[in-house]
Formats: sequence, structure tokens, C-alpha cells
Amino acid sequence: MTTSNSFVEHKENNTIRKSIGNIIKSACSAKVIKKRLPIIQWLPKYNVTLLMQDIIAGITVGLTAIPQGIAYAVVAGLSPEYGLYAGLLGGFVYLFFGSCKNITIGPTAILATMTAKYVADYSPDFAVLAAFLTGIIALAMGILNLGFLVEFISIPVISGFTTAAAMQIAGAQLKAFFGLSGGSGKFFAESVYNFVRNIKTANLWDPVLGFTTIVILIFLKKVGEGCGRKDNFMKQLRWFTSLARNAVVVILGIVVAYVFKVTTDSEPLVLVGDIGRGLPKFQPPPFSTTVGNKTYIFSDMVQVLGPQSIVLPLVAILESVAIAKAFAGGIQVDATQEMIALGFCNIMGSFVRSMPITGSFTRTAINYASGVQTPAGGIFTGFLIILALSLLTSTFYYIPKASLAGLIITAMFSMIDYTIFPKLWTSSKRELVIIIFTIAICLCVGLEYGIVSGILLEAAMLLYSTAKPSLNIEIVKRENGDLIILPLTGNVSYCAAEHVRRALLQASQTAAMDSVIVVDGSNLKHMDSTVASNLMSIVKVLEKNSCQILFLNFSSDFKKMCLVLNPTFANKFVVASNAVELIDITQKNV
Amino acid sequence: MTTSNSFVEHKENNTIRKSIGNIIKSACSAKVIKKRLPIIQWLPKYNVTLLMQDIIAGITVGLTAIPQGIAYAVVAGLSPEYGLYAGLLGGFVYLFFGSCKNITIGPTAILATMTAKYVADYSPDFAVLAAFLTGIIALAMGILNLGFLVEFISIPVISGFTTAAAMQIAGAQLKAFFGLSGGSGKFFAESVYNFVRNIKTANLWDPVLGFTTIVILIFLKKVGEGCGRKDNFMKQLRWFTSLARNAVVVILGIVVAYVFKVTTDSEPLVLVGDIGRGLPKFQPPPFSTTVGNKTYIFSDMVQVLGPQSIVLPLVAILESVAIAKAFAGGIQVDATQEMIALGFCNIMGSFVRSMPITGSFTRTAINYASGVQTPAGGIFTGFLIILALSLLTSTFYYIPKASLAGLIITAMFSMIDYTIFPKLWTSSKRELVIIIFTIAICLCVGLEYGIVSGILLEAAMLLYSTAKPSLNIEIVKRENGDLIILPLTGNVSYCAAEHVRRALLQASQTAAMDSVIVVDGSNLKHMDSTVASNLMSIVKVLEKNSCQILFLNFSSDFKKMCLVLNPTFANKFVVASNAVELIDITQKNV
Repeated sequence: MTTSNSFVEHKENNTIRKSIGNIIKSACSAKVIKKRLPIIQWLPKYNVTLLMQDIIAGITVGLTAIPQGIAYAVVAGLSPEYGLYAGLLGGFVYLFFGSCKNITIGPTAILATMTAKYVADYSPDFAVLAAFLTGIIALAMGILNLGFLVEFISIPVISGFTTAAAMQIAGAQLKAFFGLSGGSGKFFAESVYNFVRNIKTANLWDPVLGFTTIVILIFLKKVGEGCGRKDNFMKQLRWFTSLARNAVVVILGIVVAYVFKVTTDSEPLVLVGDIGRGLPKFQPPPFSTTVGNKTYIFSDMVQVLGPQSIVLPLVAILESVAIAKAFAGGIQVDATQEMIALGFCNIMGSFVRSMPITGSFTRTAINYASGVQTPAGGIFTGFLIILALSLLTSTFYYIPKASLAGLIITAMFSMIDYTIFPKLWTSSKRELVIIIFTIAICLCVGLEYGIVSGILLEAAMLLYSTAKPSLNIEIVKRENGDLIILPLTGNVSYCAAEHVRRALLQASQTAAMDSVIVVDGSNLKHMDSTVASNLMSIVKVLEKNSCQILFLNFSSDFKKMCLVLNPTFANKFVVASNAVELIDITQKNV
Repeated sequence: MTTSNSFVEHKENNTIRKSIGNIIKSACSAKVIKKRLPIIQWLPKYNVTLLMQDIIAGITVGLTAIPQGIAYAVVAGLSPEYGLYAGLLGGFVYLFFGSCKNITIGPTAILATMTAKYVADYSPDFAVLAAFLTGIIALAMGILNLGFLVEFISIPVISGFTTAAAMQIAGAQLKAFFGLSGGSGKFFAESVYNFVRNIKTANLWDPVLGFTTIVILIFLKKVGEGCGRKDNFMKQLRWFTSLARNAVVVILGIVVAYVFKVTTDSEPLVLVGDIGRGLPKFQPPPFSTTVGNKTYIFSDMVQVLGPQSIVLPLVAILESVAIAKAFAGGIQVDATQEMIALGFCNIMGSFVRSMPITGSFTRTAINYASGVQTPAGGIFTGFLIILALSLLTSTFYYIPKASLAGLIITAMFSMIDYTIFPKLWTSSKRELVIIIFTIAICLCVGLEYGIVSGILLEAAMLLYSTAKPSLNIEIVKRENGDLIILPLTGNVSYCAAEHVRRALLQASQTAAMDSVIVVDGSNLKHMDSTVASNLMSIVKVLEKNSCQILFLNFSSDFKKMCLVLNPTFANKFVVASNAVELIDITQKNV
């Protein structure tokens, strides 16, 4: 096989320096502006047919966005209208910056549950500031072109995180589902503990409605299977009812609660209750706030948000990119662009009291199924939410919390990828350890710690394998003593320095008297000063044992790296293109 | 060059599983006990000649260990006798477990400065508990065979940390050196700020004595150059005075202070003052303590020590291993053994109220220069310290703090490796960034954060380069359309998955109609499920574009990893030993 072409660019170790230069350059060119404002690409081709499709999809998504928004506001411990505020501007902003037509931006269960502890311990102002900071950090990461960071999160870690998040979110809903008294718990373990402790306080009607909700959701999902937007009317109806099933169960819940109220004048179900009416004022996010009688200025608030203010945008980006990948159909997803879009969505959102938002899997799937054509669909979802906020808040009073709990728990079941466990058991036990570790830390310490620990564990395992590059020693026969050749290939980094040193010492010990040890750098692509230092110290040790060592075909950079440590060893560096030439050189040198 | 032999063991990715098994096995065998108790190897060969040499070296080291111990106790903010307690047992314990004859265990400037904040904010009990925990963690790491972890710390990070520590330690001594009032500061920046702010409170005699101390130390160092233990009497005297120079300047300081006292009945110099007399009681370390009127139980104390309880043993191990390497003369240093030795030294030390201890560079150098033969030298250092604690504590009252400050500052100047900066500037700017970053974080945030950040930055850079393995596409000509071959070599991990995917998509876009893309796994040593998942999703994309793709010579493990995700692609995996065979296969398949 002859190498006739190598058109894949090969980046060397100076990429980091380069990329700093690139950041500045890339922020300016006209081509980049077009890339960073994807609307410029599709708007000129926009027409009425596309508009109609976007309207249908946008409204269908809205029918899920409203009940899910209310549900996730409840997950975050916020008043329900916050879930609608969070859905208000995402679509409008994503219209300009979004690169993936299917994605719908809004509140999600994971971000809501990560925001919950601030709301519980402090006030909703912290959720709004968290959205603002999430936006700022995501935008900054986008501008710094840090999209590649997403590549450092492997599938087992993402999957473990998602599974644990789903368990935690569902666990926290047990309280509402059974109408229990007491707290719900911030942890999965705590939720389960509280559930068991308070089980005796369970209401009759709440779990009945909750289970009914789940059954109806599963039924309606089945009903829509095999039906599509372009089928006959009956199938279309089944398809649409299935897509709007979240709205259906919430409306049913409202009807049940209202009937109870009217017929028996009682409220046996726990209801959502009063909802702030009307649209939020457009105003800057709260940079200072008062909780109880303590005033928090901006720096205090940031301190309260703590290290999680870094993890929130990371998770937001991750959710969005993962969803984009799932719906991109193999087309390249530009993580940097998603960072920029999410950044603007969250920043703008925080001006209308939104909690942190990102791409939602459920609603993106509905958007896709409804045949959305451009990110313009999001506008119509937004209009529907504005309508709901203006007209329907008094109706929302009657939403039973058990309906929302049923809705959330059902959504969570579909978030867990059950198949990954047997797959990894068969194919990669090491990765099974990673996913279980990630889930355990998520459930026992917290979601944010779990994802970070998972990433670090996997990175540590990778570094560990990097520390032991395979060193296959070759022996070249020579008249007066053999040549023992140790080829250094690819990247040999500081963590492999000791490994190389051990191999060389071992080689020198087993070598016969007249042998020459040759460190072959012909295929060495990267080394660092720790490796250079070890190589030079080895020379001294081997010289003490009167053992010859030579460095073959080291590039001028690597040679310089070694000689700067010990210039007297310049004569140890030789160049040869084949074995014969090398033998020649060694015979002259000895 | 023919490969006739490859005797360097090549570990596969299941090393982690293996090593857990090894831990249990390795803890038991007789051979390992001999390795883990190095005294068994050298004691049978011990004789009077060796004993005499060890006695001379031990006492010479003692003459530095006493003044340095007092000085480092002052650095930690402890009463001076703590520095002597810290030197008491190290030598006796290292005798059994130490693998490097030159190393002397005791208090060091870096560990003292890292302990200082606990003593300042709480009490000496925290320093003693820190020693105990350092011991427990170091021992646990040794038992778990984690010596390899040291290899993940590169020379730039170690050097940056040492430089920053030296600057911080010297900076904190400015107060004592100039006899200033006010605090000295926990940070380098804070120390310098306090120095400038309080400069007007400077004493006359303290800086005079301090500068004199430095001048004498430099002079005595020069005096000993070129002299050795086996020279004539005059040269021997010069050599010994030079080695004992730390004791000399402290004795001179004592004399000056005493003369002041006797002649003028005044104390114009700031003195060390009263020292606890006699040997400490042998008792367990404080597992609970009272500071002010608050009682801290064990868990509270551990919480106070915080994450630094992990960093302290790491730094202790690092110092010892770095010194062992410097004096091992190229012989393999067993980091695991050093962990075990340090573990026992610190645990035992905490029973006599020692602060955290490790190998000391200065005293190890003196030990080496004095011709020590076995770790038995440490016993005699220990005896000298016992003598000092029993008899000399009233003399120590007169030690001027400025003498100690001069001594510490001089020691710190020699700890900084000035040459590494121009070397890295010439040979590796990337590593220059790492060293400067490490120093900056150490000086501005804290030593423990600096070393951890440095390690993480370097690991991140390494992972980044791992994420972009070079993919050199080869084209094999065929009658009906070319074969585009993408070889995956070595380790292809999750962070490279996107890179591989991009390369494949790019290849498919530039390929002609009848081309077949072949992913060559012949030299693939490691892959994971994220890579497998990307490869399988690529197949779907390429099939949509009716582009052929084949997987060549994937090992059965890797094939299984892919097929568990999508069993229908089994026919895409082919085996061929050369180009002709491969062309045959592709022609059948198409």
C-alpha cells in the first residue's frame, strides 16, 4: 500500500499557541459572521410553504412546552409561571443563532433539578442570576472556540449522568405523586428515604391521578405509533393526540380537579395554585437581592452559586449538543455555535426572569416529528406561551401536582438508556466501571460532582494508558556486538518518561558487552522536557557502566530540547536512513 | 531491521483490572516483604567500618537538623521545640523502611509553610493531626502500589512548585529578617505587601544580623568547596565547618544575643524565647482538641484540614521521591517504597507531636557529602536531637529570629532552579507556559492549588494532543474506483472519536463514486465504546449517501464492541493480510 496522499491535516503540539491567534482572527472575518449567524444562510430561501410547516410544528411543540414548563418550574421549586417565562425568549433568540433546525430551547428537567437547591435555600432571584451566568459562560466558551471540550466527555459518562439525573428527578416527584407531607429531598437517596418515612401520609386521590396520568401517557404514545403527519385524517388525529399527550393529561387533570371543586366544593388533590398573571417585565437580572433580612450583593450571590456556576453551562451545552447530534443525522454539529446560541438564549432569558435553559429532548423530538423546517418554529411556540401567560393563568390554578408528577416520571423513564449496561458488560467492562461510578457519585453526592468525577476518572484512565506506550525493542545483528534499537513512536510525554527509562535500563542490563543501545526517534512526533531530562540522565548512568548509547534521527527540535540540558552529549545524536548506514556510524563512533 | 526479539513487556488496557489483583498478591509474598523492609537486605552485611562512617555522617547532619528544625517550626508558626520533635523519630523509622541511604527525613520548609495556616488559625494540635493523616494517606498509597502516580507530575510542574514555595517561604521571613511588627502574610503577595507597609517599623539590629548571617553562610559554603572528608587536616576542617555552617551561624547568633544581654541587659534582637524542655511524651496524636472555647472532634478537625490533607502527603511524597532520584545516581527509585516509609515516619512522628515530615534536600545533600553508608546514619542524627532537647533548650532561648530568617532565606535561594527558564524558552515554550502558570497560581492562590492546577493543565494539554491522533489516509488504486484507507493506530479514545468521524466524512466527500472507504484497524491497540458508536453512526450516514465503508482487521474485541451497538453491520468487517487480498474482498463485496 503506497501513501500517495495525506489530506487530513496533522496538527502539531503548537496548536494551543496557534488557536489563541485564531480566536482573534476568527472573530472578525465575514465568512465567520455568516457561520455564527446561521439565519443569514436560510432566511433568503424562506417561503410560505416552509412557514406553514414551521407554524404547525411550533404550535404542536407549544402544547408540550406549556405543561412541561410548569412541571419543570415545580421541579426547580419555583412558582409555575417561571417555567413559562423560561420558554418565552429561547425560540426567538435561537432563530438567529441556532444551527440545528429541530432543537427547541427551554427549561429542562436536569437544569431545573440543578437549580432547585438555590431556590430552596435562597430565592428565585438566584435561579434567574444562574441563567444569566450560564449564558455569559456559555457565550464566553463559544467566543473562545471551546467547542472541542465537548469531545472530552465520553458516552458512558453522558449516559451515566443522564440516567442518574432521571432517577433523581423521578425520585424527587414521589412526594407530589403520592401527595405526601414533608420534604422531597435534594438527593435520590434522600428522596427515597423521605418517601419511605412519609408513606403513611399518602393521599388517596393523588396517586390514583398520578398512575392514571402515566397509563394515559403510555397509551397515547402507543396510539400514535405508525401514524404520521401525511396520513389520512384518523391517523393524523391519532398522531397529533399522541404528540400533544402532555397537554392532554394536564387538561384532563384540570378537568378532574375542577369537577371536584364544582361538585363537592373541596380540593382533595394537591393543586398548583395561584400563578403570577401576565408577561414578566423586561428588566436586567437581579444583581443583588434580599433573602429574609439579609442582603446579597452580586459577589455574595456568585459565591452562593459557587462552582456549580461552571457546571451548569457545561451541562446545558452538553444536553444541547447531545440532542443536536441525535437529530443531525450524521451531519457535523458545531458545538461552538451551540455555545454561542445557548449563551444568548440564557442571557436574554434572564431579562424576563427565566431559569437556566437549554435544548429539550422531548420537545426537540416532537419538533422533528412535526416536520419543522427552520428554527423559526420556535417563534410560534413562544407566541403560544405568551398567549397562555396572558389568558390561561387562572385555569392553571387547577393543575393537579400529581398530573405533573406523572408527566415528569414518564418522561424520565424514556431518558434512561437501559441497553447500555448489557452492551458495555459484553464489550467493555472498563467503561461499565465508569458509568456505574458516574451514576453512584451523581446519586450520592450530587449531579454536578458526578459528571465532573466521571470526566476526571476517564481522563485519568486515558492518561494511565498514555503513560505506558508500547516499546518494542528491535535487535540488529552486527559483527562486533548487536545494536539494541528502542523506537520511540508518536507522542512520548512526561508521564511515559519513567517507562522509557525503565525500558532502557532493562535493555542495558541484558545487553552484551559490545552492544550499542540506539534510541530511534524517527517516528517520534512529540516529546517534552521531562522525557528529554530522563534520556540525558540515562546517558550518564549508561556511560558509568561503559555502555554505548546513541540517539537516532531525532528532529532538530527534540535534539535541542535534550542538548539544552547537557550540551556535551551532542555527539550522541546521529542520522541514518537505514540499518547499513546505522551500523557504519556505530562502528566509526565506537 | 528485523525484529528478532521484543523483551519489553507490553501492557494492554486491562492493566487496571490486573493491578487490583496484584495489590493483594504483592502484599503477601516473601520476596515482597524483603523489598518492603530494605533493612533485611543491608543489615546482614553491616560492619564496624560502615558504622563509623554512619556515625560521622549522622552527627554532621544533626548539626544542621537542629537549627533547621527550629527554623522550620518557626515557619509553621509553632513553638521551636516542635521542629526538634519532628526530627526525632524519622531516622529511626526510615532505618527499617527506607530504600535510599542518603535521604534524611524531617521537617522541611515546604511542608512547614503548608502547615502554617492551621497553626495560625487553630492550634498546634492540627499540625500533629496533619502529620498523622499524611502518614495514613502516604501509607495507604504505598500499600495500594500507587507509586506510578508520581510519574504524572512533570519537571516543569515540580520546578514551578518548588520555585514558588521558595519565594513564599523567603517572603514570609522578611518580617523576622527586618524585625517588623504586624503579620507576615500567608501568601507571597501578602508577605511583600505587609513588608512594604511595615517597613518603617524595622529594627536596626535584626537586619544587620540577618544580612551578616547570609554573608557568613555564603562565605562558609565557598570555604568548603574543593575540600573533602579524606583531605589533610586543614582541608578537613574547612570541609566540616562548611557542612556545619547552619549550626555555626545560629551559635554566632546566640553568642551575639547573649553578649547583648550580659553587657547591656537588653534584648535589641527578637529572640526565639522560651522553649518547651525535655522529650515529648509518647502518646496518640490529638483526635480531638479545644481551640478557644470550641471543641473540635475528629471529624471537625479533618474538615478544618480539608482537601489539603490530600495535597500534603502528595507533596511529601514528591519531595522525597525527587530527592531520592537526585541522589540515586540513575538507579531506579521505588516510589511505592518511599510512600510506605514516609507513611510510617509520619504516623510514628505524630505520636511524639511531630509536624508533617519528609525528605529534606539540604540535609540529604550533607548526608551524602559526609559519606553515609546506610540509613543507620539517621539514628545518630536522632540521638543528637534527643541530646539537644534534654540539655540545650535554655540555650535555644537566645537564638535570634533574624539568624533563622537569614538561614532560611539562604536555603531558599538554592532551592530555585534558575536555569530552567532559559532552557524552556529555547526548547519548549509550551512547558514554559506551564511552569509560569504553576508559579502564578502557587503565589496568588496557594501552593496546594498551584501544584494541582499545574498537574491538571499539563494533563489537559496531553489529552488535547491525544484527541487529535494523526490520521494519514492512504489511497490504493483499483480498477473500479480507489480504496481510501484510514488507518487507526495505537490508542484511539473517546476524545478522538469526533476527529476520526470528521476525517471519515471528509474522505467520503472528496471520494469518487466507486471508491470504498476502508477503516484499517490492523494496528489499533485500544478503542472504546464512544469511538465504536461514532464508527457505527458513520456507517449509517455513508450508506445514506450510498458510499461503501469496510472495517479491516479489527480484533475480535473491537469488532464485538461495534457490533453490540448494531449487529446488522457484521458484514462490514473484513480480514485481509495485504492490498491484493483486500482488493479481492472489496470487489466481491461491492
